[in-house]
Amino acid sequence: MVGTGCESTKQTIEKSKLVCEMGFDYVSVLTPCYFAKQIDGDILKNHYERIADSIDIPVLLYNAPGFTGGVRIPAKTVLELSLHPNIAGMKDSSPEGPAKLLACLDPNEDFHVLAGSANFFYPCLHLGVPGGVISLANALPNPCCELYRLFIQGKYDGARMLHFKLSRLNQAVSGTWGVAGVKAAMDITGFKGGQPRGPLNVVTNEAVEKIKQQIMNEGFIS
Amino acid sequence: MVGTGCESTKQTIEKSKLVCEMGFDYVSVLTPCYFAKQIDGDILKNHYERIADSIDIPVLLYNAPGFTGGVRIPAKTVLELSLHPNIAGMKDSSPEGPAKLLACLDPNEDFHVLAGSANFFYPCLHLGVPGGVISLANALPNPCCELYRLFIQGKYDGARMLHFKLSRLNQAVSGTWGVAGVKAAMDITGFKGGQPRGPLNVVTNEAVEKIKQQIMNEGFIS
Amino acid sequence: MVGTGCESTKQTIEKSKLVCEMGFDYVSVLTPCYFAKQIDGDILKNHYERIADSIDIPVLLYNAPGFTGGVRIPAKTVLELSLHPNIAGMKDSSPEGPAKLLACLDPNEDFHVLAGSANFFYPCLHLGVPGGVISLANALPNPCCELYRLFIQGKYDGARMLHFKLSRLNQAVSGTWGVAGVKAAMDITGFKGGQPRGPLNVVTNEAVEKIKQQIMNEGFIS
Amino acid sequence: MVGTGCESTKQTIEKSKLVCEMGFDYVSVLTPCYFAKQIDGDILKNHYERIADSIDIPVLLYNAPGFTGGVRIPAKTVLELSLHPNIAGMKDSSPEGPAKLLACLDPNEDFHVLAGSANFFYPCLHLGVPGGVISLANALPNPCCELYRLFIQGKYDGARMLHFKLSRLNQAVSGTWGVAGVKAAMDITGFKGGQPRGPLNVVTNEAVEKIKQQIMNEGFIS
Repeated sequence: MVGTGCESTKQTIEKSKLVCEMGFDYVSVLTPCYFAKQIDGDILKNHYERIADSIDIPVLLYNAPGFTGGVRIPAKTVLELSLHPNIAGMKDSSPEGPAKLLACLDPNEDFHVLAGSANFFYPCLHLGVPGGVISLANALPNPCCELYRLFIQGKYDGARMLHFKLSRLNQAVSGTWGVAGVKAAMDITGFKGGQPRGPLNVVTNEAVEKIKQQIMNEGFIS
Repeated sequence: MVGTGCESTKQTIEKSKLVCEMGFDYVSVLTPCYFAKQIDGDILKNHYERIADSIDIPVLLYNAPGFTGGVRIPAKTVLELSLHPNIAGMKDSSPEGPAKLLACLDPNEDFHVLAGSANFFYPCLHLGVPGGVISLANALPNPCCELYRLFIQGKYDGARMLHFKLSRLNQAVSGTWGVAGVKAAMDITGFKGGQPRGPLNVVTNEAVEKIKQQIMNEGFIS
Repeated sequence: MVGTGCESTKQTIEKSKLVCEMGFDYVSVLTPCYFAKQIDGDILKNHYERIADSIDIPVLLYNAPGFTGGVRIPAKTVLELSLHPNIAGMKDSSPEGPAKLLACLDPNEDFHVLAGSANFFYPCLHLGVPGGVISLANALPNPCCELYRLFIQGKYDGARMLHFKLSRLNQAVSGTWGVAGVKAAMDITGFKGGQPRGPLNVVTNEAVEKIKQQIMNEGFIS
Repeated sequence: MVGTGCESTKQTIEKSKLVCEMGFDYVSVLTPCYFAKQIDGDILKNHYERIADSIDIPVLLYNAPGFTGGVRIPAKTVLELSLHPNIAGMKDSSPEGPAKLLACLDPNEDFHVLAGSANFFYPCLHLGVPGGVISLANALPNPCCELYRLFIQGKYDGARMLHFKLSRLNQAVSGTWGVAGVKAAMDITGFKGGQPRGPLNVVTNEAVEKIKQQIMNEGFIS
């Protein structure tokens, strides 16, 4: 899955076609947001439909108002877009998560919502989401998968405990230092996080120690 | 439970003492918010501790940033206040709900969080909340209790379906018309909703018809 | 002028009548804001008209979105209310000030806007406002009056310099410590500021020193 | 002057160098904003200094929180950046305008602020700004220049009247329809506005009529 959302519809289509040619499976398309006051449901409906009509691989809507100055895809618009044969679902990284939307979706429609945060991945499983896109999984992929398995097996007490660990860690790492914290956590757990893209800075050594301590406290490294 | 939160600490204490004398069981204390930029965690900690020290009945924190211009009780402050012997819990009506906080609470502490919206009452049950304070329950108390019973009995499929109905209705009624919509729904389901306090208006006859239709669509009245 | 704005229309009218009986000249009525999502132009129009119809002394609208969780009186509503014979004007304490509104008012209408911040009192004089309601004037009434005199006399260079001093001080005092800073400044300049109402705290001794230094730097005390 | 602001420092530098080679006079650099919660004063200081150090033509900071999800350059950071020899000034398109900043700038520093809206261009002239960057000037360049001339000539009554006309028009056009409205106004006044970039739409024919009527009402076309 590759993110191809640009401010302009035309440029988003061009990037999406390129990604399509490169053989990827999905494009994830963040909402445009520069002219935030003008970006309403109709604008977004037209934007996503034109993109989905232009490429052969399925489109995931990407709703992330924390990164788009509050621009959200209205629930009504998501319901309309869920009918499009080439729109496969939505990644929801809003602070409040997709709970309200999930109550309104037609369960017979082939449209799926992915929970975009470790803070609500587990409760959203109880609302029927088939999966999540979780930044913390960059550093701790196995515990995130284990949480999903525990849920599938009906081991809800264990799942809740693991969810609490992951959510606490997510709040401590991503909630405090953002993407730079996630990259530091990746370095700590044996992956390659590296430097965030400037103007963001690497976290301080002190922050690295705090992150390491937090991961140890939750029992994910020793 | 009676709401006694005022802008000033002194006035909140006076009202809380009065409520205490009248024999009520709890006070629920909304955050002050007029001088929003100055209302930080330390200010709120001191505010709630002084109130809880002044009365004999337990205090519930009330976190409702949608009604307080974005003023929230920071998680760190809630954790500190959870140690106070006369602070019993928190009613959370934030748009994002208490999921992040629930991961951080000490389960051995005698402090309980109530889910403040039909939109996240059910998923929060899976995170350990003991109950909710739900505006829709003014109009539909039995279905809300039934949802709780289904959860307790482990009937999760039925619970999820009932949750979806209640959440859809909550979005259609409270989400569209606010307190005036809830009052109209109460009149429809046989309770006494009546007029909202001015400057709010009663909803239009057309809105009453839509609300009635929506309650019928979800199968709660025929 | 006495502030009488409450959340309910009825209670605002009661307080306004009381203030009227006590012999005051004006009531200043802050917008209600608890049910912020429902408080639109029509609700506000009706609210203010009912109040203005109920009392014999004139009403000032009070627009202060920083204290009301973003609730603003829409320009269109102000224009409608400006026609009411018992609505005399508006105090505008929004961050952006009344510049946009002033361009739209009918100059023949007997309706006046007061600039609600030292940060834009002077430029608003050039847009025709007849005065201001400025928190810093609690501590420095004479310089604020002097600024007005310089403007009236056409001494714009001196007025601009004095405006810069007052705006810098306002940003340093009110912008940093809010009402508690203004009260400290009042104590410093020989007035009685005293303690802010709890939950707000008095500023620290260190802050008092900074405020004193700032007032000295601008030449208002020696 | 060419806008070269991208989310990454590196990409902004690359685009700025290109613009420099193409012979332009200035780059205007909008704040990055995707990771809004991490974009603080230190991050912005470093970002702008690295860009200004990398190119030979001067840099204008571009502060436009309405387009960047609320990301602002803090006043303290602007003051620090104003000392950089290759940072020439700032274009301020915040809703509140540059009034607070202008009070804090050192008048001996070679750093200039341009007012970024017809709503506050005129009052900011009284605070010492040397000019503005005004979207409405795309459609009405001569009246905008005339406003500046009236100010320079000390014809303040005429300037205020013209300001009111331009601000009303700006609110009616840009405030209602955004960039699409400005483009329609350009077509009406004899320039080439054309279509906005998708996903934005052209305004309706009805809106075109309203815009034309508004420009006529203010006397700029007949």
